[in-house]
Amino acid sequence: MAIITLLTDFGIADSYVAEIKAVLLAGAPQANLVDISHQIPPGDVQAGQYLLNRSWKRFPDGTIHLAVVDPGVGSERRAIAAQSGGHRFVAPDNGLLSFLPKNARFVALAIPAKASPTFHGRDVFAPAAASLATGASLESLGKTINDPYHAPLPTPSSDGAAVVGEVIYVDRFGTLVSNIPPELVEPGVRIRVAGTEVGPLRRTFGDAARGALVAFTGPGGTVWGLRSGRENSRGAACCAPTL
Amino acid sequence: MAIITLLTDFGIADSYVAEIKAVLLAGAPQANLVDISHQIPPGDVQAGQYLLNRSWKRFPDGTIHLAVVDPGVGSERRAIAAQSGGHRFVAPDNGLLSFLPKNARFVALAIPAKASPTFHGRDVFAPAAASLATGASLESLGKTINDPYHAPLPTPSSDGAAVVGEVIYVDRFGTLVSNIPPELVEPGVRIRVAGTEVGPLRRTFGDAARGALVAFTGPGGTVWGLRSGRENSRGAACCAPTL
Amino acid sequence: MAIITLLTDFGIADSYVAEIKAVLLAGAPQANLVDISHQIPPGDVQAGQYLLNRSWKRFPDGTIHLAVVDPGVGSERRAIAAQSGGHRFVAPDNGLLSFLPKNARFVALAIPAKASPTFHGRDVFAPAAASLATGASLESLGKTINDPYHAPLPTPSSDGAAVVGEVIYVDRFGTLVSNIPPELVEPGVRIRVAGTEVGPLRRTFGDAARGALVAFTGPGGTVWGLRSGRENSRGAACCAPTL
Repeated sequence: MAIITLLTDFGIADSYVAEIKAVLLAGAPQANLVDISHQIPPGDVQAGQYLLNRSWKRFPDGTIHLAVVDPGVGSERRAIAAQSGGHRFVAPDNGLLSFLPKNARFVALAIPAKASPTFHGRDVFAPAAASLATGASLESLGKTINDPYHAPLPTPSSDGAAVVGEVIYVDRFGTLVSNIPPELVEPGVRIRVAGTEVGPLRRTFGDAARGALVAFTGPGGTVWGLRSGRENSRGAACCAPTL
Repeated sequence: MAIITLLTDFGIADSYVAEIKAVLLAGAPQANLVDISHQIPPGDVQAGQYLLNRSWKRFPDGTIHLAVVDPGVGSERRAIAAQSGGHRFVAPDNGLLSFLPKNARFVALAIPAKASPTFHGRDVFAPAAASLATGASLESLGKTINDPYHAPLPTPSSDGAAVVGEVIYVDRFGTLVSNIPPELVEPGVRIRVAGTEVGPLRRTFGDAARGALVAFTGPGGTVWGLRSGRENSRGAACCAPTL
Repeated sequence: MAIITLLTDFGIADSYVAEIKAVLLAGAPQANLVDISHQIPPGDVQAGQYLLNRSWKRFPDGTIHLAVVDPGVGSERRAIAAQSGGHRFVAPDNGLLSFLPKNARFVALAIPAKASPTFHGRDVFAPAAASLATGASLESLGKTINDPYHAPLPTPSSDGAAVVGEVIYVDRFGTLVSNIPPELVEPGVRIRVAGTEVGPLRRTFGDAARGALVAFTGPGGTVWGLRSGRENSRGAACCAPTL
């Protein structure tokens, strides 16, 4: 029973996601569908890339990932499928899969003549994912390409005295997710967020005075910041406005 | 493994949907549950009808659709089940299934004495859907009726010079979904939305100047309008306020 | 195929829930994952307790419930697993499971050295739930404890003349959920909400003049209040501001 994950910016109020799932289950009745998120901000390829990159490796080998954040749907951008190790992906060729390692394989998907120009998620990507789930090989889905659009997330720089990163994601709790790996943060070093002193790197957001901004190594593997408070430490939107 | 889809106005914050799913899985452990939407505006039978009508035929034969947008729960309104081709439905008799073809069959469901008067989704519709999923026939669930409440979505009219439709749904992206089939829109004809000229029918929302309002044939099969923009073409709420 | 339910305050926009599901499916590929809610207000253990208590018994025996509303994650609070009848639970030891009967069994889970201090949902609770789903016994997961943190929902009191309860939850529709069992409400007794007279206990929210506040026995088994209206009886937030 192949797992197919779904990540889109379609939201959950409309029927778009359900129409994709209907096509997946019509083509691959045994597939196990798992939502990653449908709340990517509309057209925000970078946010989609961040969340998919966090998630995909935790699923077992054999998983297929359908990712559709696709502001250019119906334009000349290609539709692609990719394989890396035991994981396969279908997505628009707009940088959404830029986290894949260099040895990943890519093919360009054919666009069926009857596909709606505004809903490739249902008419292009879902049929391709269903084919993969029922035994099709990556190469059977289209012609190999070697130039997928590459737009990786920004990486931190150094000005000699300091490592300078940026906030690449803000989560439901108002947590500011930076792109700084903790191994670049030496013990005792001072951390600043938009000019505000945060103090040294802590173990968790509970390790700070209530209401204080705290930096810690987040479960995504980089340095995160959050306004703390022991009883209800993760007030939504607590931090975003002031930083 | 029968698919059971769920469409409600219960939202996803409370436990209502989970209580329905618990009853479905207690009665039909092999059922494959697929959410269509739980974000129908409270009591908006027309929005529910629109989304269910878009989705149901894409699911494979044998699928059961549980639909509960039910402002009259606990009143005299009947609870019904229906069958059309290989698809079956359970829903309140308030017009939610008005899209079904004339040859669909309908039965009135019995209301168990212990059913909560305010939660037929859990106590009436879920047990009926579970019965269907485990082999019960439609007719075993209740007495045949021939007069289901019929309240179809509005259809466009013509004033001779023009086809006049209406917006029947607004999606997450602010897309205005009209009820005008594209075959009524002759090539080159002018399209207006609430007095604003939109220009001719386009292929997709990318085919317009950035920020311009564009009409295109949406993936639901009717004429849709959206404010365009190549990079982030579907800004939430971009259009609704001004049209 | 064991059912694993999920209840968290992680929301559905980020990848947190998907990372938990990935760990569950990597460890227990046959598990059937069912969301109860991920929209518990951040850190609101009482709301989580209320929704889980409503839902768990409706699932079949053998179900495993993963519940993570965990403002103290990474602190000294214990991580626990519990069993009551055929149901098993994994949760932080912060009162979230206080509804379990006195004869429930509890163990303290070991915290793996590599667990992220801020994401025990993924690194502690999900592996434990997957182990239970694949045959592990409760006692194999940790040392038995007899003192789980106990913080039950408030119960109504009596001042002789009146039963005094409180609103313990407000749902999507603005329904005020009290903790008063209907058997304490004698026929014809007057009901007041924050000083406003509501009238006698009704059968359903339709049984009142449109716009009037109505009290009825909710499907959760206690007395609920809602502003009524036959056509669209459950306007979101209709009641909360005025009561």
